[in-house]
Amino acid sequence: VCVGIDPVLERLPAELAPRARTSAAAAGAVERFGRDVLDAVAAHVPAVKLNIAFFEAFHAAGIAAFQRLISYAHERGLLVIADIKRGDIGSTAQFYARGHLERSAFEDIPESSVPDAVTLSGYLGAGSVKPFIEAAKRTGRGMFVLVRPSDPGADEVHDFGGERPFYRHMAKLVDAWGSDAAFVGEYGLSCVGAVVAPKDAESTAELRAAMPRTIFLVPGYGAQGAGAEACRPCFLTGGRGAIVNASRSVIYAYEEPRYSEKFGQDWRKCVSAAAAEFCAEITRVVQAP
Amino acid sequence: VCVGIDPVLERLPAELAPRARTSAAAAGAVERFGRDVLDAVAAHVPAVKLNIAFFEAFHAAGIAAFQRLISYAHERGLLVIADIKRGDIGSTAQFYARGHLERSAFEDIPESSVPDAVTLSGYLGAGSVKPFIEAAKRTGRGMFVLVRPSDPGADEVHDFGGERPFYRHMAKLVDAWGSDAAFVGEYGLSCVGAVVAPKDAESTAELRAAMPRTIFLVPGYGAQGAGAEACRPCFLTGGRGAIVNASRSVIYAYEEPRYSEKFGQDWRKCVSAAAAEFCAEITRVVQAP
Repeated sequence: VCVGIDPVLERLPAELAPRARTSAAAAGAVERFGRDVLDAVAAHVPAVKLNIAFFEAFHAAGIAAFQRLISYAHERGLLVIADIKRGDIGSTAQFYARGHLERSAFEDIPESSVPDAVTLSGYLGAGSVKPFIEAAKRTGRGMFVLVRPSDPGADEVHDFGGERPFYRHMAKLVDAWGSDAAFVGEYGLSCVGAVVAPKDAESTAELRAAMPRTIFLVPGYGAQGAGAEACRPCFLTGGRGAIVNASRSVIYAYEEPRYSEKFGQDWRKCVSAAAAEFCAEITRVVQAP
Repeated sequence: VCVGIDPVLERLPAELAPRARTSAAAAGAVERFGRDVLDAVAAHVPAVKLNIAFFEAFHAAGIAAFQRLISYAHERGLLVIADIKRGDIGSTAQFYARGHLERSAFEDIPESSVPDAVTLSGYLGAGSVKPFIEAAKRTGRGMFVLVRPSDPGADEVHDFGGERPFYRHMAKLVDAWGSDAAFVGEYGLSCVGAVVAPKDAESTAELRAAMPRTIFLVPGYGAQGAGAEACRPCFLTGGRGAIVNASRSVIYAYEEPRYSEKFGQDWRKCVSAAAAEFCAEITRVVQAP
């Protein structure tokens, strides 16, 4: 399991509201929130996902906060997925890989601020992913390429092709991109993973079979509507091969009466309890026969 | 026409080499280069495109440099396209739009640092583009959604579907997303444009017909191999409806003997001459009967 950190200024606990209308003050507020969330969930989950969109909204100050949060998550022993969904032709992708997955080339950028994996948009073909695969090979890191997104609005693109839909084509490509033995580790899993939303059990199982070496990053749990049971076909036998992410249902748990009535003003305890429950629920599904 | 600014540290003129191994020094070097390029091309072209990947490689310092360059381009009277290729589900896209196209919400971020248009990846459907359309409506700005990229490596994705290929499907969607009368201006063109690489004349003309209200941002000219003649079918009759971009062939003109032999060490004159030639060549094609 993995907790997604998507901090929205307007939803932060009142005590964290920024004191000035500057990007620096706003970035400072989401950074404080992010650190507290990391503290609250670190005991319950092995990994976190930081969505860079929620930091880019605060420009350079947001990017600096994003990187410091990655370092802090590493200090807390967490694996970090940077949810960046970058995708461009090879000559450009090379620079995205330098910025987000390669070893730090700069004295003022600590290696701890580089994530363990990124999400990618592979719609410009192998060239858009290759620079990340090269970086992953050198650094032991990895990536998750979009195959089937969680938003039903994406179906107008991903169901294109009818009987043999576009997302199945992307699955085939992602499987091929990651199949080289040099990219596959001791558990038979590749550094090239896939973002796969759990929809009906049949189509999810088909995707699982089409990408046998691919770790699934599974969005859509919680606030986006998927339950733990829907995630089951994303796992390989033995409970390997998938990482289920929950973002809003965990980090904004203090907005839910069932938590706030129990913990009152202590929003950190609400987040912590939601992370523990989320983990327990997925574990139960994975361990069920 | 439009000059693309994709600054690569290793290719900068020697006088601009950074003095320290920090992201701040590197970002400073590409910013100085970018300012000089803007000065060199401002007399010859109406627009520039800044590719954010080449700045993200320098982390927060790179983003700050990127934004200052946008402001500087505006000071020089240029229109600015921020080549960001962002694409995520609606709830995330909203924050990408805040970061890149909405009016500045912060006192320390000048409105002049917001570009006039962005490039987008629309593969997560209407939801991924809608927040940008809303921002464009409010601010008079615009966007270019990927329809057919220039890299032949992208064909494995875009030719999917055979007779009725995927890129044609994207063209249909982009046309629909921008068709509302509220998005169409006095010349009959929509704020929702498309990135369309010029390949064979027939398929390019088909795309032009499929998106009659759509401004084409045309990559692939120059270093990527397309000539001016190939760009002709991207234009509407009368020479409207397309923006042809050249990046490397202009900004690194000083690496080409035909310029450096003429202008010697004055790399800025090489860039200026290449921009003037590029503009003349496209103008000739557009004005030809």
